[in-house]
Amino acid sequence: MDEKLLETFNGTAVKLAGHGRRDIAVLKEALAGVEDSLAGDMYGAGKVIEEFQAEMAEVLGKESAVFFPSGTMAQQIALRIWCDHKGSRQVAYHPLCHLEIHEQDGLKELHHLEPLLLADADRLITLDDVKNMGPDVACLLLELPQREIGGQLPEYAELEAISAYCRERGVILHLDGARLFEVLPYYGKTAAEVCGLFDSVYVSFYKGIGGIAGAILAGSREFTEESKIWKRRHGGDLISLYPYILTAKYYYQQRIGRMGGYYEQAKELAALFNSCHKMSTLPEVPVSNMFHVHFALPKEQLIPVLVQVHEETGIGLTPRLKETGETSCSYELSVGDLYSGVSKPALKEAFRLLDRLLIEA
Amino acid sequence: MDEKLLETFNGTAVKLAGHGRRDIAVLKEALAGVEDSLAGDMYGAGKVIEEFQAEMAEVLGKESAVFFPSGTMAQQIALRIWCDHKGSRQVAYHPLCHLEIHEQDGLKELHHLEPLLLADADRLITLDDVKNMGPDVACLLLELPQREIGGQLPEYAELEAISAYCRERGVILHLDGARLFEVLPYYGKTAAEVCGLFDSVYVSFYKGIGGIAGAILAGSREFTEESKIWKRRHGGDLISLYPYILTAKYYYQQRIGRMGGYYEQAKELAALFNSCHKMSTLPEVPVSNMFHVHFALPKEQLIPVLVQVHEETGIGLTPRLKETGETSCSYELSVGDLYSGVSKPALKEAFRLLDRLLIEA
Repeated sequence: MDEKLLETFNGTAVKLAGHGRRDIAVLKEALAGVEDSLAGDMYGAGKVIEEFQAEMAEVLGKESAVFFPSGTMAQQIALRIWCDHKGSRQVAYHPLCHLEIHEQDGLKELHHLEPLLLADADRLITLDDVKNMGPDVACLLLELPQREIGGQLPEYAELEAISAYCRERGVILHLDGARLFEVLPYYGKTAAEVCGLFDSVYVSFYKGIGGIAGAILAGSREFTEESKIWKRRHGGDLISLYPYILTAKYYYQQRIGRMGGYYEQAKELAALFNSCHKMSTLPEVPVSNMFHVHFALPKEQLIPVLVQVHEETGIGLTPRLKETGETSCSYELSVGDLYSGVSKPALKEAFRLLDRLLIEA
Repeated sequence: MDEKLLETFNGTAVKLAGHGRRDIAVLKEALAGVEDSLAGDMYGAGKVIEEFQAEMAEVLGKESAVFFPSGTMAQQIALRIWCDHKGSRQVAYHPLCHLEIHEQDGLKELHHLEPLLLADADRLITLDDVKNMGPDVACLLLELPQREIGGQLPEYAELEAISAYCRERGVILHLDGARLFEVLPYYGKTAAEVCGLFDSVYVSFYKGIGGIAGAILAGSREFTEESKIWKRRHGGDLISLYPYILTAKYYYQQRIGRMGGYYEQAKELAALFNSCHKMSTLPEVPVSNMFHVHFALPKEQLIPVLVQVHEETGIGLTPRLKETGETSCSYELSVGDLYSGVSKPALKEAFRLLDRLLIEA
């Protein structure tokens, strides 16, 4: 039945979410304007990597930045460096932090760090959680937005208070900014302003930016120089990373100015979902381009509904569902370039059909 | 003075070694014949990665193969898996093994493995070294060819004897085959035949093959499945690796049949070097496409000689030199596509000039 959902989704003419297929055209488009004779980077050196690192250091308001093949690698290394500096093995993060649930415990198996899980899984970390976390925490990681709970954000004043508290107590603050660019319109801040609250920052180039892969880790020069040693240890200091760097640079330029639009469209789209029965979004009003869609229906009852919407309207909602309980399921949605190609009347029609089918289900 | 050497080398019309500049054209050429609509790989799944892994498993005669962003990552992981299986922390390898001298001690810092350095730095590991290595070694790594001593190789019978000995004693044998394809013409064996002597194998795609980056790790399915977990822990399970996979595949097809030619040309070229005064190659007769060129002259006396050859002949010898003593220096040379573009009379003329200048130096 899951296959039927995927198959009908793939068969739709337009999709609500994302920037489009992750196919080879993504790479070819980014390379089209690059001169053939541009030299590739060599083990972290060369114009192509150094210029992009300098550009991102500037954007993030940090002294220095290093390009990594993945955020998984960059963040483990950041936490390791801070723990070594502090002489403690303990880091603190959210129970649904990427390092805790998506990395096969690399942080523990490779670096032997000990995470303290702050907050309940279904809510954000608060200043109170931070105040109660005990004296052994070397580094606190905050993820903005908190992806696994729909992309929620603390109010900016709370963030500032957490940052001030950490500075006062000598706790290092690291930003998991996988989707940092996507939250700037809500905060009404520059990336450098937000990053100014943190000692180190990771950003990704294949979420809202829509590149192929790759990440930037930024901080003081001392910090990034140390991170390069660990990058080599991890096997991430590839002879050439330029395929990722050139695409990151190209799509950053193309999409960084669209983040405000994605955010507005996400709010518009969430309102449509929330106007239907047995369905709601988390957060109810998005604070970035992303949200989760929750259904008060068992997966096996919901799939035929979504399949019918796919087949009758040609609008793709989702290729897959996650079961969240016996009578509930959900999926994640991130607004990208595709949304503006969806006709508004057709979209409203699709939601009318969806609502009718949900009422009957 | 080093800069003058690099500058005049860059100014030459033809180079003796390599496949040419590592510029963006390398990627564009490989992509030109790939359909725009080909889907990228997603976290290790998808046609583009699965087909190449299956092709390489077949070539290497192993049950299964996994594509890695780097050999550094692949080999640390291989040794870690074998040590965990054997319940020992000790691995054995050559004193100039890549893991020992080029990886910032990742093996020790991330995996806490303890290397036993076999043999003297300036010679190959022998069967006797292996017999004397003690009972705690979980895994022995052999590098074919041994790059840091000019790309030397054990005789095939010695290799078979080492393999038989390790099997008998239950020592795992891992192949650092960064340049495996390059030694097959000398051995007169297929890759699968050589790999049959080993439990696990790593091969690289940016040495003789001339891709951008990337590696294959091959072995039993149980071994490669375990390696995927560690690949994620290391941060190497990128959402998409296709830029490296497509170039590896393209240049493998293009160059795998040329390895015999490179080997013959390396022997021809080494003979020219050995015909000059104060200069010799290691090995004297190459056993692959590579060798080291050694000069019995201090670097500061040699550089003006090489600069003059660059300027007068337009043939590029080397962009840099390594000091090996107070009155000696060397550089590494790997024959690739460029060599066949060098005119033979011009080459002989260049060596006549080089010899004359060396005699006078």
